[in-house]
Amino acid sequence: MNLRNVFGLNLQRLRRERRLSQEQLAHLAGCARAYLSGAEAGRRNATLDMVEALAMVLEVKPADLLKDPAVGRETR
Amino acid sequence: MNLRNVFGLNLQRLRRERRLSQEQLAHLAGCARAYLSGAEAGRRNATLDMVEALAMVLEVKPADLLKDPAVGRETR
Repeated sequence: MNLRNVFGLNLQRLRRERRLSQEQLAHLAGCARAYLSGAEAGRRNATLDMVEALAMVLEVKPADLLKDPAVGRETR
Repeated sequence: MNLRNVFGLNLQRLRRERRLSQEQLAHLAGCARAYLSGAEAGRRNATLDMVEALAMVLEVKPADLLKDPAVGRETR
C-alpha cells in the first residue's frame, strides 16, 4: 500500500467517523469534491497544503493522516 | 509554523544527519535540486509522492517528516 492509499483510507475513515459527506468535508477544507474523492481513492497526489487543511478540519495532526494503520497494529 | 515549514526543517535535519548534500538527496529521491531546496525552505508545496520518496531515502516513516518537533518537546 503506497502513501496515497494510506492517506486516502485515513481520510475516508475520519470523515465517516465525523459523519461528514465528501461534499461537506471538501467545502470545509476549501477544495473541490472531486479532489477529495480522488484523494480518498488514492488517485490524487495531494499536497502538504491540502493535508494541512484536511487535518485541521478533521481535528487530527497532519502526521496522523500518513500513518499506516497496519503498521500500528503489528508493532505496538 | 505551518506544515510546509515543519516538513522543510525535518527534511533538512535528516539530510544533514545522513551527511547528504541537497544534490545527492535530490538525485536519490528522483527530484530536482531546486525542488528539494524549495521544500526545505518551506516554499514548495510538496506532494505525497515526494514525501514518500524522500522518506524512503532517509529511512524514516513518511509521517515522521510531518511531525512538529516543538510539539514533541512540549507534550512528551
